[in-house]
Amino acid sequence: MFFASDNAGPAHPAIMDALVKANEGYAPPYGTDPIMDEVRAQIREIFEAPEAAVYLVATGTAANSLALATLCQPFETVFCSPVAHIHEDECNAPEFFTGGAKLTLVGDAVKMTPDALRASIEAEESRGVHGPQRGPVSITQVTERGTVYSVEELTALCDVAKGFGLPVHLDGARFANALVALGCSPAEMTWKAGVDAVSFGGTKNGCVGVEAVILFDPQKAWEFELRRKRGAHLFSKHRYLSAQMNAYLKDDLWCESARRANGNCARLAQGLRAAGVAFTYAPQANIVFCAMPRAIHKRLHEAGVVYNVWSGSLAGDDPQEMLEARFVCDWSIDSAEIDRFVGLVKG
Amino acid sequence: MFFASDNAGPAHPAIMDALVKANEGYAPPYGTDPIMDEVRAQIREIFEAPEAAVYLVATGTAANSLALATLCQPFETVFCSPVAHIHEDECNAPEFFTGGAKLTLVGDAVKMTPDALRASIEAEESRGVHGPQRGPVSITQVTERGTVYSVEELTALCDVAKGFGLPVHLDGARFANALVALGCSPAEMTWKAGVDAVSFGGTKNGCVGVEAVILFDPQKAWEFELRRKRGAHLFSKHRYLSAQMNAYLKDDLWCESARRANGNCARLAQGLRAAGVAFTYAPQANIVFCAMPRAIHKRLHEAGVVYNVWSGSLAGDDPQEMLEARFVCDWSIDSAEIDRFVGLVKG
Amino acid sequence: MFFASDNAGPAHPAIMDALVKANEGYAPPYGTDPIMDEVRAQIREIFEAPEAAVYLVATGTAANSLALATLCQPFETVFCSPVAHIHEDECNAPEFFTGGAKLTLVGDAVKMTPDALRASIEAEESRGVHGPQRGPVSITQVTERGTVYSVEELTALCDVAKGFGLPVHLDGARFANALVALGCSPAEMTWKAGVDAVSFGGTKNGCVGVEAVILFDPQKAWEFELRRKRGAHLFSKHRYLSAQMNAYLKDDLWCESARRANGNCARLAQGLRAAGVAFTYAPQANIVFCAMPRAIHKRLHEAGVVYNVWSGSLAGDDPQEMLEARFVCDWSIDSAEIDRFVGLVKG
Amino acid sequence: MFFASDNAGPAHPAIMDALVKANEGYAPPYGTDPIMDEVRAQIREIFEAPEAAVYLVATGTAANSLALATLCQPFETVFCSPVAHIHEDECNAPEFFTGGAKLTLVGDAVKMTPDALRASIEAEESRGVHGPQRGPVSITQVTERGTVYSVEELTALCDVAKGFGLPVHLDGARFANALVALGCSPAEMTWKAGVDAVSFGGTKNGCVGVEAVILFDPQKAWEFELRRKRGAHLFSKHRYLSAQMNAYLKDDLWCESARRANGNCARLAQGLRAAGVAFTYAPQANIVFCAMPRAIHKRLHEAGVVYNVWSGSLAGDDPQEMLEARFVCDWSIDSAEIDRFVGLVKG
Repeated sequence: MFFASDNAGPAHPAIMDALVKANEGYAPPYGTDPIMDEVRAQIREIFEAPEAAVYLVATGTAANSLALATLCQPFETVFCSPVAHIHEDECNAPEFFTGGAKLTLVGDAVKMTPDALRASIEAEESRGVHGPQRGPVSITQVTERGTVYSVEELTALCDVAKGFGLPVHLDGARFANALVALGCSPAEMTWKAGVDAVSFGGTKNGCVGVEAVILFDPQKAWEFELRRKRGAHLFSKHRYLSAQMNAYLKDDLWCESARRANGNCARLAQGLRAAGVAFTYAPQANIVFCAMPRAIHKRLHEAGVVYNVWSGSLAGDDPQEMLEARFVCDWSIDSAEIDRFVGLVKG
Repeated sequence: MFFASDNAGPAHPAIMDALVKANEGYAPPYGTDPIMDEVRAQIREIFEAPEAAVYLVATGTAANSLALATLCQPFETVFCSPVAHIHEDECNAPEFFTGGAKLTLVGDAVKMTPDALRASIEAEESRGVHGPQRGPVSITQVTERGTVYSVEELTALCDVAKGFGLPVHLDGARFANALVALGCSPAEMTWKAGVDAVSFGGTKNGCVGVEAVILFDPQKAWEFELRRKRGAHLFSKHRYLSAQMNAYLKDDLWCESARRANGNCARLAQGLRAAGVAFTYAPQANIVFCAMPRAIHKRLHEAGVVYNVWSGSLAGDDPQEMLEARFVCDWSIDSAEIDRFVGLVKG
Repeated sequence: MFFASDNAGPAHPAIMDALVKANEGYAPPYGTDPIMDEVRAQIREIFEAPEAAVYLVATGTAANSLALATLCQPFETVFCSPVAHIHEDECNAPEFFTGGAKLTLVGDAVKMTPDALRASIEAEESRGVHGPQRGPVSITQVTERGTVYSVEELTALCDVAKGFGLPVHLDGARFANALVALGCSPAEMTWKAGVDAVSFGGTKNGCVGVEAVILFDPQKAWEFELRRKRGAHLFSKHRYLSAQMNAYLKDDLWCESARRANGNCARLAQGLRAAGVAFTYAPQANIVFCAMPRAIHKRLHEAGVVYNVWSGSLAGDDPQEMLEARFVCDWSIDSAEIDRFVGLVKG
Repeated sequence: MFFASDNAGPAHPAIMDALVKANEGYAPPYGTDPIMDEVRAQIREIFEAPEAAVYLVATGTAANSLALATLCQPFETVFCSPVAHIHEDECNAPEFFTGGAKLTLVGDAVKMTPDALRASIEAEESRGVHGPQRGPVSITQVTERGTVYSVEELTALCDVAKGFGLPVHLDGARFANALVALGCSPAEMTWKAGVDAVSFGGTKNGCVGVEAVILFDPQKAWEFELRRKRGAHLFSKHRYLSAQMNAYLKDDLWCESARRANGNCARLAQGLRAAGVAFTYAPQANIVFCAMPRAIHKRLHEAGVVYNVWSGSLAGDDPQEMLEARFVCDWSIDSAEIDRFVGLVKG
């Protein structure tokens, strides 16, 4: 039973098949492969965005950093949640790719609120040339704590950004999980709400390693291409990125996989709830944060369940001390495992 | 018939099999997968370097840029050939990853000579704090023109570098092709000659997309890891990089593939020579540079042969004008194709 | 009456005289001038630090950014107060000069506390290669709100930093004002407390434009010199920086000027206190933050007093609304002006 | 007798007087001082450019680097002479300020020619996203070898740049010396010829330390201001920069000083010519490069003449060996010294 992260599971067999199938003869390199043409068309159709510029990279950090570098000047600051991946988990990659922009942490909650965002943006107002200038707003959907912004919430944040003339980036490492949770369309969750650029994740949802960057305004497309190359993120054998994304988007695989992950997560949440476990954040996609007594954690670990204890340490003595943990369901987990896990929790 | 580049051919079936085989269940992310332990052991054994730090990335530009960034301060300059990939084909990635170091072009030949290298290094001598400081020497093996440095030549260049206390980087995007051309050991072509860090290519020789960076002195290993992460080149599902490299190094596949590519290139060179074609550079690995009349080029293109005309244009009128071209043999080409091609050249 | 900032007052006549006196004949450029030798000796003596490396630049932001760039790797984070000048007032200069390091804001108070600092440093603990690495601690003395860390407080912060093996930078743009406020020695306020590098301000305390950077451990001296040059902060006609600093340090001018500024500020604070005005922060050096009714602010402005309203706006209607303001006393203000000002406040 | 550089001489008394005069009372900081308004008006008038954006910094490297950073993207390359100051003498400052742009060395002569420039620009043509993109052309006037581009030559270079849509920067560290050598107007030497941005030197021609950056198209003015602040080159007590430039431009002081320096240099050149000394480069402004036997160099050094031997070493034995040297005349040298020097050469 593995709940440590959705970046540790296997790729979906359809993705592997696509890789194998793409491995025939020669293909033009560096993104000029015909499968990439298909991918571009797929994403434009799925997003109802016929003009969008679409690029592939292999890591989520690359997608985020390159998108932000394209939207942000080095003397600006990016507004994001205090627990944003770009702030906590990318070892200063956004600062590196932007040439030294700052990240301004908005409020103290996981989800940014329009009021907190407005306050943060306004706080950069009065210093003229001395302070960092206002730059893009970056929203993480699904959040790093497993919650999901509603379309209304996204729109409200984008409205604040637009009121100041600032572009909006969506870190969609778990885009599909959010989408199926909301039941809206990709367009509604992005450009219709006011999003300008998306990191559209594939890796965590059953791919080997591929993320799309979607720029709804193609004006900065060429700059993005140059930044991707300069960042060493342009693949020569690009067809293997294209093939993954192509298969991922075909026959609704991406949404199917997310539905499965979210569904199993809901089952897990239900089981925990039934066992009296309290959630630290409302589980809305494929991640559960909850607190359980050390005794239960020890039981789980002894049974070989793999996951991360988020605060505190298993090593303590008090069996009743509550330790927070994160459980992530990837596309590949099955319901029987969930049930076994819940059984272990119940003891 | 495809001779445009060795970055456009398919991956070797053994590599694909390894990818598929690696796709079982969960694996620890970010380079902690057990296959990576095997890869590390393989490379240390192959290079007779039990202390070496070994890392994987997905592109050659990433390998070069991260290796150089680890060896070079931003106020230094990297000494390299005027046709080095790091200078001509990476859109300023080395400048980006080093934080703004300079590249000093050594001499005007494809291969650096010890005299030219010494002269370049000495030329940075007298400016104190004003000029860029001397930084690493970067050698490309196979060169960008298909020639190969002998072990003696490499040693002589490294000796010059060492005389000034400068580290040496080897851009081995085509490491295997050089190695089998020289018939020496990996250790002889690297640390025994004085090389400190290697970009060890897999992609061009039958992998999907993987390159190793080998640091013979592990002192900067942790810095390299941080730079890799910050550069967005640390893969979460790292096992798919490991699996490629693992299969590539197993059962001598890497050398076999290179022998095949070089052998077919030699066959092609022999055919061209027999047809009276003159080489621009001596073909020593898997690349041929040669000049042929426009008429022959037109015939080849009409027959569907894919390759790059390097100088001049097919579009001209004079059928006798000589146009230079590059022909690259990858691992997957077969001898029959070579013979057909030579037949076309002969007309 | 001018209280807007100590960066807008005139230079002390002794500084101007030194400039004029230095303007004789030729002098070796780029920091090799003989006056610089004197300055180095002065600072080493004043700081009881015979090995210290000493450099001059022309702006406080340059001093801070270059010192931090020398102490900090680009994948690290600098720990500082949420109101630190390096965070709020340098338009991302520290991020620029460090090559993209992050700034981590410690706690929510003006002064960092050891507990808040420890908590911030520990919070970067668990993410391994993913999070920013722990970098230098930067302390502002006098703080941006006019308060002063005691030697005990500085020592306690440095102890926390040292416990994690982190270097400490002191932003001493108002070093002299802090020193005379504490009545300690320069050594006690810096290296004896655990400080590794100091931005030693001259500009705000009567110079034309000069700051010293003092590195108590000279190991990184050459790197600093290269970073200064690369940052375009090495002056060719360096003697004019040296002459300022030389005169500033001579005959206790620097402490005299600070005593005068602090003394007048104390007089101002006393007057305000007597008039019933409440301080936002305890005035401990040459800066007062206080809140007064709009009516008083209007009276002051009409009388031509120049200062910054820090929160709220003069333009409102309610005469009783409290507006916070900052009053800075520079070396050149005289007591009569202070008294006139207090008279205006009293109305 | 001092001929080592024009960066080691004293400031003109009028400049010092202006500094002292500016030192009265309070002045708005950070470039908002009223003297700066005068300077802006002066430069706009002198350059016949009523819309130009005008900024002051304290070093020539700052002027060059900030101007180039404003004109250049990090994935571009700057075209310049192989002996350009930005390439040889700024310790990678342009690479730093541009965020990692490259410098492409044009031809192998001191002066760029239109043909060599066109060839360099065209050489970057065919690599698409892989090579650095074409960026600004930077011309040094007076060149680093004491020669001067004619207006026709400047225009021809600018025409090549314009033909490719590239902006042109003029490194005018010795702008005045070139101007009086050509006898043209500032407009003719800059925007009328096609120059977009100028580093307008003051330091080498009698100032303490001030350079103007002039952007004829003010569209990037705000970006320049932010880059200046972020580079730590915005002075709080800016009036002391303004005062220098104000005095420098007043009453034709800048041209007078340059005429004097050039005139004395011509006198020196004439004396050398009469003594049979051969010039390495035609002396056209205030710098002479020439070769003389070691015996003469020894005589000069023994007499206390200060200058730089450019190639070879005084320390050798052969009295007849020719050593190249550079002699720079600054504004403050007088004709009697020139004559004494020539007398020493004649022996």
